[in-house]
Amino acid sequence: MGSKRTTRRDLLKSGGALAGGLAVLGQTQASGQTPTVAPTVAPEHDHGSGASPMVKGTKELVEYGQRSHFVTSVRIAHPVGGRHSPDAFGKTFHIATPLQDSVGVITPSSLHYVATTRGAFVPDIDPKQHRLMIHGVVDRPLTFSMEDLKRLPSVTRTHFIECAGNRHNGRQKTVQETHGMVSCAEWTGVLLSTLLKECGLKTSAKWFVAEGAEEVKGASSMPIAKAMDDCIIAYGMNGEAVRPQNGYPLRLMVPGFEGIFHTKWLRRIKVVDRYYMNYNDYGHLEKSEKEAALAFQIGPKSVITKPSGAQQLSGPGFYEITGLAWSGGGAIRSVEVSTDGGKKWNRAEIKAAPQRMSHTRFGYPWVWDGKETEILSRCTDEIGQQQPTREQVAKYWNVPFERSYRVPGLDNSVMPWKINKDGSVTNGLA
Amino acid sequence: MGSKRTTRRDLLKSGGALAGGLAVLGQTQASGQTPTVAPTVAPEHDHGSGASPMVKGTKELVEYGQRSHFVTSVRIAHPVGGRHSPDAFGKTFHIATPLQDSVGVITPSSLHYVATTRGAFVPDIDPKQHRLMIHGVVDRPLTFSMEDLKRLPSVTRTHFIECAGNRHNGRQKTVQETHGMVSCAEWTGVLLSTLLKECGLKTSAKWFVAEGAEEVKGASSMPIAKAMDDCIIAYGMNGEAVRPQNGYPLRLMVPGFEGIFHTKWLRRIKVVDRYYMNYNDYGHLEKSEKEAALAFQIGPKSVITKPSGAQQLSGPGFYEITGLAWSGGGAIRSVEVSTDGGKKWNRAEIKAAPQRMSHTRFGYPWVWDGKETEILSRCTDEIGQQQPTREQVAKYWNVPFERSYRVPGLDNSVMPWKINKDGSVTNGLA
Repeated sequence: MGSKRTTRRDLLKSGGALAGGLAVLGQTQASGQTPTVAPTVAPEHDHGSGASPMVKGTKELVEYGQRSHFVTSVRIAHPVGGRHSPDAFGKTFHIATPLQDSVGVITPSSLHYVATTRGAFVPDIDPKQHRLMIHGVVDRPLTFSMEDLKRLPSVTRTHFIECAGNRHNGRQKTVQETHGMVSCAEWTGVLLSTLLKECGLKTSAKWFVAEGAEEVKGASSMPIAKAMDDCIIAYGMNGEAVRPQNGYPLRLMVPGFEGIFHTKWLRRIKVVDRYYMNYNDYGHLEKSEKEAALAFQIGPKSVITKPSGAQQLSGPGFYEITGLAWSGGGAIRSVEVSTDGGKKWNRAEIKAAPQRMSHTRFGYPWVWDGKETEILSRCTDEIGQQQPTREQVAKYWNVPFERSYRVPGLDNSVMPWKINKDGSVTNGLA
Repeated sequence: MGSKRTTRRDLLKSGGALAGGLAVLGQTQASGQTPTVAPTVAPEHDHGSGASPMVKGTKELVEYGQRSHFVTSVRIAHPVGGRHSPDAFGKTFHIATPLQDSVGVITPSSLHYVATTRGAFVPDIDPKQHRLMIHGVVDRPLTFSMEDLKRLPSVTRTHFIECAGNRHNGRQKTVQETHGMVSCAEWTGVLLSTLLKECGLKTSAKWFVAEGAEEVKGASSMPIAKAMDDCIIAYGMNGEAVRPQNGYPLRLMVPGFEGIFHTKWLRRIKVVDRYYMNYNDYGHLEKSEKEAALAFQIGPKSVITKPSGAQQLSGPGFYEITGLAWSGGGAIRSVEVSTDGGKKWNRAEIKAAPQRMSHTRFGYPWVWDGKETEILSRCTDEIGQQQPTREQVAKYWNVPFERSYRVPGLDNSVMPWKINKDGSVTNGLA
């Protein structure tokens, strides 16, 4: 689409800017060079990395590799998360993923966001001792060991998880602060429906409750229809065991639902005959069953991760604007990008076939003319839901613009990034 | 297909086996329990994990998480790899990924296989200093910094890499030893064709050579048609920067070609007018251009990872047989599994839409009757190539069966796992 039509021209336009001060080196080296096919690393051929020091191997690095010490991207405390000291216990604890450094779709497990209401401590569970019990209004209650679960038919699906507290306002500086409470991983496990069929649902089975191994009660009511549709009892995450901070050895995946429902350290599922409201359903209290079920689902949302707040453009020329889009409603159908503050919206390129309830990476080729402007993204999902602008949200709830990130439910409004004359990028809501 | 038709019945059949000794606990707990929705963790409700000790948070764990200490899966030296001590320098160095523990499609970056001809040491490259030079028979040689590359249109694709030394024989015990020199990751970067269009190819451009920042020359001749098709200059791996052992900060991806061509620590690409044979093309020496180009491509290959060598079945009953399939010829079209030593082949379930030149996870529902047998898998790719049996390979090359893993090019023959009466799993080639 737009991208395909303009990329080549934009690249040529920007060729000068890109090559400026770079091609010289390349040309000099090329001309002064005999066409050796496997050249030795001689000073005159050195591009700056030939003389790199070597990192000695260690038994640990051979067995299990690590990232470069030049890569320093880390998780940070999310503004809404309350106490965040490593010794925080029994407190709301929100750690945001560094989206500004993200590439592709997968969030590295070490950088996956974490949200708990019990602090930085995590249960240290021995998988040999761990059990999952399924009971309630079923014909045959069953308890499964980890080995039992791994013998059953498995599924592998890429899904995002987002915390309902993932809200953006004018006081936040980076995309890690505005949107860092969402992540995406490749999850592997057994469909909950496979286990419930083994137990046999009674006709009175309407909702289910999940409990994790934590002092804080991890129970939340969810519709049994969701359980029979696509919920996963996950033991695998990005090709290895689920990480402790994400529920090792077992996590309930409820694709597209708010993060609070993806119960970590899962040990019990109870099938019940009615909707129970309990304190973990904060935000959903005093709702009818129908409203509650609907409110659980994450709306269509997207954000530009590069360029984003606190990043710096090195000058006019070509840049690919890139970011992530996701929706609890299913797969992303399309993403649009505006580079003029929302007056004109252009179709962005989707980087790979969108998966259901998964992050989708998008890109839009842009030549910055050096003038001040605002860049935004918005998405539409497969059931036709479109991500709203901040103005639309404020108007819908009839609240002041600056308060509109505090609306009931989730904040999935469009995020504007301001590009300043000096190439600095700042929060467009500030 | 087969799987869908039999899964339910097999599960019911195995229900007894699965529930045996397990349902009791579940039933007892369920009956003795009042229907609290958010139960506290009382001894009578404890399934073994409620009393788990807690792991205290640390600044390091908050910033960058780690796996559970109960997860001990590590890479090991591959039998063919020569010296493997961490201080090995300038030696062939092959480290195999633990496929027996793999779940899903992605290989965790920390466990991605490593093969070098320069030992355990890796270049310690400062990305700010690193440059990629493209020269040779081009209109305009160019040199790119990491920041230049990250401004250009990006692609994100899941691709496997396999070492030509990934061969299985009767002396190996586990699937890590037989097939561990292959891995799969989500790679992000710039298409090489995007950069070559900027440089402008001269009409004499027929092949290209890649050089990495290592003492050992990393150059190999590759067809320019491949460069313009799907080669990626990758800076991202599984959502973060490429790991040092895999080429940080830049690696050449040549989807479907032997691992040796995926040049690590990439710093130079030279476009040339003819096929050069150099010592890194071992195995391809004395080949015609056409033969060489063809021999670069990985054939259709698959292996059962669970149950596999040295694993143990806990007794008769239901097991999902699962494994991985891949091909340099494109996407996997189908996978078949035999549970009777190759007499009958059954269609396996593909776990997700197969990607081109990517691992594809397959599963087949199986009820083990407790008798001795042999399980095998074979795959067919989108261009119709079918993975050969060991017998077919031996016959084709007219070599003894036991020597047939040493045939020219790759060994992509079918791998048999023997299931013994006691539930132990051993190498079917032994």
